[in-house]
Amino acid sequence: MLTCEILSIGDELLIGQVVNTNASYISEKLNSIGIDVTRVTTVGDDATVITKAIKRAWKEQNIVIATGGLGPTHDDISKNIVAKFFGKKLILHKQTLARVKARFASFGYKKMPEANIGQAMIPQGFTVLPNDRGTAPGLLYHFNRKTFIILPGVPHEMKFLMENSVIKLLRKIHKKKLGDVIAHRTLLTTGIGESMLAEKVGDVNNFLVGGATLAYLPKTSGVRMRISVRAKSEQIAKNIIEKIERHIRSRIGAHIYGMNDETLEGAVVALLRKRKERIAAAESCTGGMLSMRITNVPGASEIFPGGVVSYSNDIKMQELGVSEATLHTYGAVSEECAIAMAESALKKFGTTYAIAITGIAGPDGGTSERPVGTVWIALADSYGTTTKLFHFGGERAIIRERSSDAALDMLRKKLI
Amino acid sequence: MLTCEILSIGDELLIGQVVNTNASYISEKLNSIGIDVTRVTTVGDDATVITKAIKRAWKEQNIVIATGGLGPTHDDISKNIVAKFFGKKLILHKQTLARVKARFASFGYKKMPEANIGQAMIPQGFTVLPNDRGTAPGLLYHFNRKTFIILPGVPHEMKFLMENSVIKLLRKIHKKKLGDVIAHRTLLTTGIGESMLAEKVGDVNNFLVGGATLAYLPKTSGVRMRISVRAKSEQIAKNIIEKIERHIRSRIGAHIYGMNDETLEGAVVALLRKRKERIAAAESCTGGMLSMRITNVPGASEIFPGGVVSYSNDIKMQELGVSEATLHTYGAVSEECAIAMAESALKKFGTTYAIAITGIAGPDGGTSERPVGTVWIALADSYGTTTKLFHFGGERAIIRERSSDAALDMLRKKLI
Repeated sequence: MLTCEILSIGDELLIGQVVNTNASYISEKLNSIGIDVTRVTTVGDDATVITKAIKRAWKEQNIVIATGGLGPTHDDISKNIVAKFFGKKLILHKQTLARVKARFASFGYKKMPEANIGQAMIPQGFTVLPNDRGTAPGLLYHFNRKTFIILPGVPHEMKFLMENSVIKLLRKIHKKKLGDVIAHRTLLTTGIGESMLAEKVGDVNNFLVGGATLAYLPKTSGVRMRISVRAKSEQIAKNIIEKIERHIRSRIGAHIYGMNDETLEGAVVALLRKRKERIAAAESCTGGMLSMRITNVPGASEIFPGGVVSYSNDIKMQELGVSEATLHTYGAVSEECAIAMAESALKKFGTTYAIAITGIAGPDGGTSERPVGTVWIALADSYGTTTKLFHFGGERAIIRERSSDAALDMLRKKLI
Repeated sequence: MLTCEILSIGDELLIGQVVNTNASYISEKLNSIGIDVTRVTTVGDDATVITKAIKRAWKEQNIVIATGGLGPTHDDISKNIVAKFFGKKLILHKQTLARVKARFASFGYKKMPEANIGQAMIPQGFTVLPNDRGTAPGLLYHFNRKTFIILPGVPHEMKFLMENSVIKLLRKIHKKKLGDVIAHRTLLTTGIGESMLAEKVGDVNNFLVGGATLAYLPKTSGVRMRISVRAKSEQIAKNIIEKIERHIRSRIGAHIYGMNDETLEGAVVALLRKRKERIAAAESCTGGMLSMRITNVPGASEIFPGGVVSYSNDIKMQELGVSEATLHTYGAVSEECAIAMAESALKKFGTTYAIAITGIAGPDGGTSERPVGTVWIALADSYGTTTKLFHFGGERAIIRERSSDAALDMLRKKLI
């Protein structure tokens, strides 16, 4: 099996200013052709540290893909380091020089800055990977059945080179040694914790067939369950994954709202569109988040005419007809208030359903009876109103996110 | 100078499923107390590979911070590997068990799942870092002037531990060896492009004193300008940064809405609170995002009674009194409609200001006259209403984000 290391170069990655999205992208692309990324190493713009990292990766892996430090300014040192490490001289690559010059001309510059000539200097024996999105080409060196590649760190340039050169060349060079297909499917759940899920799903040894693995990935909004498998073909991998998925769904199907990149709001909007039904929102502590999430989904206008954000008690009374008595007797964070908000929104917007959320997101406003994180959600339709009380942990932003998750999931469960 | 390696553990980071945001966050925190991150290594859930990575990091660095693999399920293997590497037995930590049980109880579970007992097993001699945000505690081991730390991979849990334990402990343990202070200050701008900003600010050589650097970091919401400097003390670093900041502010002050972690909505809420004024929102294409952003800020209830999401034309008429004639003659995405929405919201909510947003977020709904990205924003107060037309690029989510940015910035400029 082929192993690969990604070597990300750049100070900005080490001081927390920039998140390393390149490594994720490259990993995904390599996985899709059966190459395993065994390690991602990130280092700053320091010649000694970079050289050491290249040396180690080249020794241990079949393929090394480095990114960053190919630009025209003084802090771009990667190419010189790579040339030195492989004992190659830098020589002028005429087609690249012509390409860089043409690029400057196309932007209306009469003359290319001196600094950019350096970008056409290529280590002898390296293959040039033409970059249509910028001035620095990618470089590939194949020796002793191993491949070293270096790409610019600018994400859209790196992506262009991965798609147009790297994947094709790796497929060709390592044809005989490319591993099995590596396939993944992620089932998305919400409203149930990791250990509860694992308990309900049961011992993995009883259902993980074909060498597949199952990983639990918790996020604020819920736990994702990723099934991964290696197989001779995509079809075989798919069959194995679907068999495992069937088992999991038989145990916890109701908690699964989607797969892979799908969202909870996307699932809800799709269900409503299919049923030709509509929803309205009446929000207090989430302050518009539920409406915003629903309208994130293209085509939401079919199923969502609108909502009210009633953040103050006055607006709860004026816009949603919550009575002063209700607010006085039970408070704004109460089942009674949630019901009044939902039922009033149902009438006001003339929808099939209306959801109301009222709670204490914090940091202030909590009491011993109703601590921060107390949230009432009401879901109304023409048959009546159901309510649910939640006690969410976490900070303000997380409580708001979980509240809108819970509201969407209440509606989803009603629709399925 | 102290060196540190971050060791990110998890298959999800190697298959492109999750972007490694934890490493960026940890780097930034360590930088702020003068600790340099020299390398970030990312490996999958493989015992051999993890052990090798720990061994190398422990040999070469003063401080190692690992994240991930501390959960309760079968694929969480980090703790056992760490215990084995350091030759420690796992022993039951009673306070942690009590804490985990209490956590389940607080969520209304009668019984803690069996799997969670494992989370209270701690390698002998390790310090437990209590985790108020989840069930897995952080762990710290100090030996031979070196420190090894492992934290859960769930971002908000990791952040809680970094802020409440790790930074304080590292400051204490390594007090004498902490290097020069590395200080950064980021000035946040919106509504103006990178090259425009650079032109207005002028040649950096004229104002960058004390070895400081200035980096321009463009984001969807605007360009951030990061000033960085190393100095003997926080006070010296602060003086240098403030001198540079004064120059920058003298040139482009009106475009700067905040610093570092501040947000545009935070700046607007602070200004309104100071002036004892209130705002209401009437949203179409942003679907609640403006209200949501305002209510993200703790204390927003003082300045925000509520808003209307009028996604459909019916609701624009019914709830905001937009006339059928306006919709028929000018359409929903028009200056006239934006004005009607804002002025109606001003009356309805009785606030000092009201903002209305109406536009085409796409992907559908664009015409040659009004392409996707066309957005009208109106800002009303008792003196009248000002409007602005925008043509935003990008996809649906970006157009919505930029629309709410522009609305907040219109209000901010009105308030300063």
